[in-house]
Amino acid sequence: MDGKFIVFEGVEGCGKTTQIERTSQWLSAQNTADAPMVTLTREPGGTQLGSALRQVLLESQTSEPLQDRAELLLYAADRAQHVHRVLKPQLDKGGIVLCDRYIDSTIAYQGYGRGLSLELIVQINYIATDGLTGDLTLWLDVAPEIALARAKRRGNCNRMEEEDLTFHRRVQQGYAALARAYPQRIARIDASASEDDVQTQIQTVLAERFPEWLGN
Amino acid sequence: MDGKFIVFEGVEGCGKTTQIERTSQWLSAQNTADAPMVTLTREPGGTQLGSALRQVLLESQTSEPLQDRAELLLYAADRAQHVHRVLKPQLDKGGIVLCDRYIDSTIAYQGYGRGLSLELIVQINYIATDGLTGDLTLWLDVAPEIALARAKRRGNCNRMEEEDLTFHRRVQQGYAALARAYPQRIARIDASASEDDVQTQIQTVLAERFPEWLGN
Repeated sequence: MDGKFIVFEGVEGCGKTTQIERTSQWLSAQNTADAPMVTLTREPGGTQLGSALRQVLLESQTSEPLQDRAELLLYAADRAQHVHRVLKPQLDKGGIVLCDRYIDSTIAYQGYGRGLSLELIVQINYIATDGLTGDLTLWLDVAPEIALARAKRRGNCNRMEEEDLTFHRRVQQGYAALARAYPQRIARIDASASEDDVQTQIQTVLAERFPEWLGN
Repeated sequence: MDGKFIVFEGVEGCGKTTQIERTSQWLSAQNTADAPMVTLTREPGGTQLGSALRQVLLESQTSEPLQDRAELLLYAADRAQHVHRVLKPQLDKGGIVLCDRYIDSTIAYQGYGRGLSLELIVQINYIATDGLTGDLTLWLDVAPEIALARAKRRGNCNRMEEEDLTFHRRVQQGYAALARAYPQRIARIDASASEDDVQTQIQTVLAERFPEWLGN
């Protein structure tokens, strides 16, 4: 695999959606001679199967509550399909993949948030992904209090956003623990800054790690 | 857990649906003083989540093909929810649960049929079920050629029924291997016989194993 797999992570309302789109536009505007193709995708929901599962996973709890292990297995099913249909094919072609959430989300949300065994999560995810990990994770770090207030202003809260603040604080602790454990793979971005400033931080990290992507 | 968990297994068109309903009616008609409640359920689809997943898993392949591991994980998610919401609660109350398909189906279809590692399947299913296994499996054994012809006469073939005969022969080999490996748990029923005869065989097995269920 010659491509690069860049993952955007963080609590709800951290600004991932805006930043991943701006990053995609910035990368696509770099006029290097043989610029790699940029693919923008997300989990859950990066495939047709994923779109169906995203509804089940994120729509508000109007129906029966989702059991924790069922939730974990559904995210893993979405991921298996996504790796097979989108991530590996794009990376094999040498493309840059920008992905909104990946395994770190499962560790933060289902592990730290729900309290499921981290060993179990790692095991299931290894099966789902066949061992595919990200090359770089950009962790958009912002206090859950601030991020959730942003998400709520957006309206139409999803099932995760409806969880209480203590849940999101545990999720945030999960991200912090991951960033400490994998300092090479995970770059912390101060996402409490302005939208422009966050984008500048992201571009700086990418330019340092992948100078070959930048035009002259 | 005081209840009994009875699973009906076999290839598409083996007659499970008819036989499980007749067995439920027969058991409910036994007028023992303290007759346990009989619950009739199925996988996939025994919960609200399961109904949504059943559509994804069994509707014909009009959309993108389902990757083998994604399929395995979806069945496991359905099962985790089913164990938690239906099977364990009913068994804890001392009920009799008649279930159309359980782990043996995954071993036969995803293991023998699709060729996924049996170790992987056992591992994922242990996680999904928290170790819950059936007390008795009634394997409705009929040649896949005959069973598939029956299923096709019914019309509206699902995604599994549309697989070719060699796939269903491997599934059948899977059931045969399971029956040899677990002779105590799995009772073979000759499902090439008439509907009445198959029901008589089932009642005979149940009466032998659970004489306390029968009225005088």
